[in-house]
Amino acid sequence: MRGRKTITRAVQKILKQARVARFATVDSRNRPHIVPVCFVFDGTAFYTAIDRKPKRVPPERLARVRNILAVPRVALLIDEYAEDWTCLWFILVRGRAKLVPVRAHQERARAIRKLRAKYAQYSRAMLAADAPVIRITPESITTWGKI
Amino acid sequence: MRGRKTITRAVQKILKQARVARFATVDSRNRPHIVPVCFVFDGTAFYTAIDRKPKRVPPERLARVRNILAVPRVALLIDEYAEDWTCLWFILVRGRAKLVPVRAHQERARAIRKLRAKYAQYSRAMLAADAPVIRITPESITTWGKI
Repeated sequence: MRGRKTITRAVQKILKQARVARFATVDSRNRPHIVPVCFVFDGTAFYTAIDRKPKRVPPERLARVRNILAVPRVALLIDEYAEDWTCLWFILVRGRAKLVPVRAHQERARAIRKLRAKYAQYSRAMLAADAPVIRITPESITTWGKI
Repeated sequence: MRGRKTITRAVQKILKQARVARFATVDSRNRPHIVPVCFVFDGTAFYTAIDRKPKRVPPERLARVRNILAVPRVALLIDEYAEDWTCLWFILVRGRAKLVPVRAHQERARAIRKLRAKYAQYSRAMLAADAPVIRITPESITTWGKI
């Protein structure tokens, strides 16, 4: 993985602890889309689930899902804004996203367990055991700023 | 503009006051890229400048600049994370980005003036009078959540 050497312990820690990331996908007409997502990082891959926060459309019609089916290349940004600009930093993850297939029970169950462990907000009603899960496999991780 | 009717006064206010946005572009190989940006919204278009926060490469080689020259379609996300998920919201702007041409002195000077007025951090050294400025013209603005 390009940029692997940049994943210091400090970066690993931020990636595990950060509460939100912004997830960019692209549609088949080359138009980018971004949503904020809750996620977990297991040291190798990132997982984010289609939870039951209100949505306009069913999971399979969500832009992020349609987009990764059409174009698997994605980007994930972890950063925090601060008025003291000398403190600014970001971590940019670029890679490939895939819906974890239904047959990969164990991987999906593990991701959902980790999401529930990280976010107390994920009640069983909010994150179903059979929720669609997206796996993001990083190809590069680059950092900028005070990190 | 699609979604125009969703720009309520509350949305206009957030777009004018928000301190940070996440800016997604796409490269010629269909790979998305995201960076956090400072920006202004004048009620019609968004402007963000290539300022002098430390960069790895000169402005013309920055991914966001190369990308909008190759693929003008972009997305801009304005949101704030909160642990109380009933408070979550986001505004997603999708549109076209362009480097404001050097000959468009007035537009560029106006954008830089607005950026300096919004961000006290923009000293003259941090944001040069001839800094490259990106204009983002929205084609759709959609909102989600408590907004």
